[in-house]
Amino acid sequence: MSQTLDPAALDQLFREARTYNGWQDRPVPDTKLQELYDLLKYGPTSANSSPARFVFIRTAEGKAKLKPALSEGNIAKTMTAPVTVIVAHDPAFYEQLPKLFPHTDARSWFAENPALAEVTAFRNGTLQGAYLILAARAVGLDAGAMSGFDNAKVDAAFFAESGWKSNFLVNLGHGDPASLFPRSPRLSFDEAVRLE
Amino acid sequence: MSQTLDPAALDQLFREARTYNGWQDRPVPDTKLQELYDLLKYGPTSANSSPARFVFIRTAEGKAKLKPALSEGNIAKTMTAPVTVIVAHDPAFYEQLPKLFPHTDARSWFAENPALAEVTAFRNGTLQGAYLILAARAVGLDAGAMSGFDNAKVDAAFFAESGWKSNFLVNLGHGDPASLFPRSPRLSFDEAVRLE
Repeated sequence: MSQTLDPAALDQLFREARTYNGWQDRPVPDTKLQELYDLLKYGPTSANSSPARFVFIRTAEGKAKLKPALSEGNIAKTMTAPVTVIVAHDPAFYEQLPKLFPHTDARSWFAENPALAEVTAFRNGTLQGAYLILAARAVGLDAGAMSGFDNAKVDAAFFAESGWKSNFLVNLGHGDPASLFPRSPRLSFDEAVRLE
Repeated sequence: MSQTLDPAALDQLFREARTYNGWQDRPVPDTKLQELYDLLKYGPTSANSSPARFVFIRTAEGKAKLKPALSEGNIAKTMTAPVTVIVAHDPAFYEQLPKLFPHTDARSWFAENPALAEVTAFRNGTLQGAYLILAARAVGLDAGAMSGFDNAKVDAAFFAESGWKSNFLVNLGHGDPASLFPRSPRLSFDEAVRLE
């Protein structure tokens, strides 16, 4: 039976984790990205549809391709991050369902209902982006998510052939504590929760 | 400096965690829901906007109010779950920004741009729903997320006054291992990831 994780793990995942604006000069090896994916892939999605697709940008060429799409305030930290992830989704994700959800014909639920396919891809791709953020923290990385960029420019630069759609970006690395602002307040339980 | 969490924690959060279809007869006290919220609230959102709102349904009356909105296949497990969460968001979330993001006028970014407000509420409310799933696992609960229900019916039954919008549902409790199906396959690294 599961117990509450130890306090240090809860600190690392939630209570002490922060969105960094600057990075230490420490690389993130590709083996770490594989480790990260091999955790996040287990996060639950609707009908196991797993619509998210991830581009891990580590090279100067890749960063240069991304740069023109970034909001001014996101350029410096993204250019210096060891890895920037484009969290995207495949609008035709349902073509994988015969493999991912083999016990029934789930493909037809989405192939025949474009509106359902679109909201499912966005909702579940976003869930998987959150799993990536928390899996990164679980493997000892810091993560900084951003939606301040031009999605259409990213899609044109990276997904002209695949047809994938960008959702948001996540910088990965080892954060520089000097780059942190004080933590902003959160809504209280009574403000955000109703009990029924 | 953060290290990778121990293997048992990674199992509990990702590798061995499952979406249960049946529940043990063990209650989830309200103190546990407070503990859960006090972790998930720290998950990052755009401009700390924290648009998600959560309804924790524990009573027979609350479950009865939810039941007519559920897809047939989701009724039995939801009626027997100790807690069912409506993961929702407040479309007017930006009214909280003077408190949540006090160092600049972020309210106006959204108040003057309804399309940006809508996508921000949905994206970030969904991220917070994923934080809830993983925080539940971190405090030793099992979680079962569902989008098989009628959002408009839930909104009419629960949010006629608040104007909140339902996103998805999550059952919480201690899962019954006998209710599990075998785990479905996931996409491989090479199928879901591109390196640049």
